[in-house]
Amino acid sequence: MHTADPFLFQLFFIFVWAKLFGEVFERLRLPAVLGEILAGVVIGPYGAGLVVPTDAIYAIAGIGAIFLLFTVGLETQPKDLISVGRTSLYVALAGIALPLLLGYTYMIARHHPPHEALFVAAAMMATSVGITARVLGDLQVTQTRAARIVLGAAVFDDVLGMIVLAVVVGIVSSTGLEWAQLLITAIEAVGFALIMMFYAPRVVRRMEPGMERMSTRDAPLIIALAICLGLSYAAVKIGMAAIIGAFFAGLAFAEYSPRWNLRERVFSINEFLAPFFFFSMGARLNMGVFDRRLVVSAIVISVLAILSKLIGCGLPVLRAGWKTAAKVGVGMVPRGEVGLIVALVGLQMNIVSETAYALVIFMTGITTLVAPPIMKVLFRKDMVSQPALLERRKTAM
Amino acid sequence: MHTADPFLFQLFFIFVWAKLFGEVFERLRLPAVLGEILAGVVIGPYGAGLVVPTDAIYAIAGIGAIFLLFTVGLETQPKDLISVGRTSLYVALAGIALPLLLGYTYMIARHHPPHEALFVAAAMMATSVGITARVLGDLQVTQTRAARIVLGAAVFDDVLGMIVLAVVVGIVSSTGLEWAQLLITAIEAVGFALIMMFYAPRVVRRMEPGMERMSTRDAPLIIALAICLGLSYAAVKIGMAAIIGAFFAGLAFAEYSPRWNLRERVFSINEFLAPFFFFSMGARLNMGVFDRRLVVSAIVISVLAILSKLIGCGLPVLRAGWKTAAKVGVGMVPRGEVGLIVALVGLQMNIVSETAYALVIFMTGITTLVAPPIMKVLFRKDMVSQPALLERRKTAM
Repeated sequence: MHTADPFLFQLFFIFVWAKLFGEVFERLRLPAVLGEILAGVVIGPYGAGLVVPTDAIYAIAGIGAIFLLFTVGLETQPKDLISVGRTSLYVALAGIALPLLLGYTYMIARHHPPHEALFVAAAMMATSVGITARVLGDLQVTQTRAARIVLGAAVFDDVLGMIVLAVVVGIVSSTGLEWAQLLITAIEAVGFALIMMFYAPRVVRRMEPGMERMSTRDAPLIIALAICLGLSYAAVKIGMAAIIGAFFAGLAFAEYSPRWNLRERVFSINEFLAPFFFFSMGARLNMGVFDRRLVVSAIVISVLAILSKLIGCGLPVLRAGWKTAAKVGVGMVPRGEVGLIVALVGLQMNIVSETAYALVIFMTGITTLVAPPIMKVLFRKDMVSQPALLERRKTAM
Repeated sequence: MHTADPFLFQLFFIFVWAKLFGEVFERLRLPAVLGEILAGVVIGPYGAGLVVPTDAIYAIAGIGAIFLLFTVGLETQPKDLISVGRTSLYVALAGIALPLLLGYTYMIARHHPPHEALFVAAAMMATSVGITARVLGDLQVTQTRAARIVLGAAVFDDVLGMIVLAVVVGIVSSTGLEWAQLLITAIEAVGFALIMMFYAPRVVRRMEPGMERMSTRDAPLIIALAICLGLSYAAVKIGMAAIIGAFFAGLAFAEYSPRWNLRERVFSINEFLAPFFFFSMGARLNMGVFDRRLVVSAIVISVLAILSKLIGCGLPVLRAGWKTAAKVGVGMVPRGEVGLIVALVGLQMNIVSETAYALVIFMTGITTLVAPPIMKVLFRKDMVSQPALLERRKTAM
C-alpha cells in the first residue's frame, strides 16, 4: 500500500499477463514457464514497454527465486539419492561436466571474458526435472528403467549443480584465480551439501517434538520459512548466492515435508510469487542485442547444451542399449529455473553482460521446447507395452 | 535478490523477531498479533533501531494487508449473514454507530482536525472476530446463543465496517464536505458490497466449469489471486482503499473457498506475509509522542472503545438477560487488523498524524488484551453446563 498506485498496478498487471501467457502456452502443450518469461519479454521495458518493473517488483521476484529453489530442495529426498544407485550418479556427473566444459570452451573461443564464460557454462549444466517429470507422468511411464534413471539423476544433478554454482560464485568473488582458494570453496560447498543432506535432517528430527509443542500456529512452516530465509542470507554473507542457501534449507526439510504438508504450503506461496520471477526474467531480456553474431552464438550454445546432455547422460547407460541411452539423454535436456537463476546471479554481480544473459534465456527456451516432443516419441512404445497401467488408468477414471 | 544484502537481511530478521515475539505472547496466553506488533515497536526505527524497514519491506507489508483482508472476506459467508438473523444485524449496527459517534466527538473535543477524528473513529468501529472466535473455540462454547450472536454480528460488522471505511475515504478524498457527493459514495459502497455478496458468487459459480477446464495448474487459486489484486487496484483507482477491494474479492469467493481449498492456501501465503505487516505497524509507532496529554487521550479513547461496544452491542440483546448482553458486549470488544489497517490508510493519506496513529495502536492493544480474560469468566458457566461437549472433547483426545 506504500506507493500504492504504481506498485499495486504492477502487481495486478504482471500477475495477470504472466498467467495469461502461461495458460496459452499450456493449451499449446508448451511449458507454462516459457509463457510467463515471454510475457516479460513482450510486455516489459524492452518489448511493448507497458510495464517497467519497479525495485519492489524485482524484490518480490527475488523472494520468488528463493522459494522456487526452496521447493526444489524440498522435493529432493536424500533417501532417494542413495537408493537410485550409481548409474544415476554417473549420468548426473557426466551430464554436468560435459556442458560445463563445452560451454566454457565455446564462450572463451568467442572471446568472452573467463568469468562470464564460467557463468554461461554453469547455467548450461542444471537439468530442470520439473518439465521432464511432467512429460513422464503424462505418458504414465515413470516406472520404466529409463525414467527412473532420469528422475534419480536429476536429483543428483540439482545437488551437484548447486555445489558447482557455489564454487563458481566463489571463484568470481575472489580476486584472481587462486587454486588454494578454489579448493577451499569447493570443500566448503561439498561440506555444506553433505551436512544439509545427512546431518540437518537429524537436527530437524530432534527438533520435531519441540516444534509440535510450540504455541505458534503452523510452527513447522514458520520454522522452515525462517531457516530458508536465514540460510539464504547466510549464503550471500559468505559469498554464495541466496538461492544456494534456500536450496539446502529445502534439503534439510525434505524428509519431513510430507508429514508437515510443507511442499503444498510453500507451493501456495510459490503460486503467488513465481510469476513475478519469471516475468522479471523476461523483462530483463533486451531483444535488441540479438544481432547476427549473437543469433549464431545462441544457436551454437543451444546445440551444445542439447548434445552435451545427450552424450554426457547417454554414454553412462549405453550398455543398456542405445534406446535407453537416448531416452535418458533426451530426458535430461530441458534446462529451467536453475539455469535462469544462475544467469540472473551473474547479471546482478555485473559479470554476465546483456548479450550473455540473452544467450542463456535463448538456450533455456530451446532446450525446454525441444525435449518434450522427442521424449513422447521415444517413450511411446513403453506406453503401449504397459497395458496393465493403461487399464489401471481407465478403471481409475 | 535485487539489492540482495540489506533486503534479505531484513526479510530474515523481521520474520524471525516477529515470530519470536508472537511465540512469547502465545505462551503468555496473549494474542500473537500483539507480539508481532510489539516486535516492530521494540526493534524498529523508533525502538532499538536494529532494523529500519526499506520501501521493499513496506511494499511486502502492504501485500500482507491485502491478503489479510482477502482472508477475512473468504471467511465471511453471505449465507451465514442471512441465517444469523436480525439480532446480529442490530448488534453490529449499534456496535458500529456508537464507537464512530463517541470516537469522533471526543477527537473533535480534543481539537483534532475533523478528517483525522473521522479516521480514528473509523478505526474504533471494526471488531476483530479472529481473537473472539479463538477464545470461544478454546472454551468450547461456540454453540451458545451469546456466542452465535457475537460470531454473526462480527460478520455484519466486517461488511458494514468496510462500507463505512469506503465512505470515510471518499469524504476525505473529496475537496470539502459535500453531502450530495457523500450520498453518492455511500450508495456506491453499499452497491459494491451487495454486488460482491450476492451477484459475484453467482458469476464465480458460472465460471466454475470453465475454470476446471483451464490448463493452468491451480486455476481457482490463480484466478482468485488475480481478482483480489485487480479489485484492490480498482478500489484505489476509484478513491477507496486497496484492502476494501481485497475484502470484497474475498466475499465473492467465500462460497467456493472450502471446495477449492482457497482459505488454507491463501493462509499459507499469509503466514509468510502477515508478520511483515504487523511488524511494520509497530515499526511506524513513535513511542516518543506519548506525552502526558496523549496518554490521557489514549486511555480515554480505549475506554470509549470498550464502553461503546459493550453498550452498543449489549443493548440490542438486553431482553435476553443482562448476562447474555454482557457476553455479547465483551465478545465484540477486541479490535484488530481492520482497525490497524484503517489507521495505516489514514497515515499514508497524510491525514492521520503520528499521535493519532499512536492512539489507534494503543486502543487496539488495550481492547485486544482486556476482552479475552473477561470473556473467559463470563462464559465459564456455559462451559461447566455442557458436560456433553466436555465428554466429547475427552473421547476425542
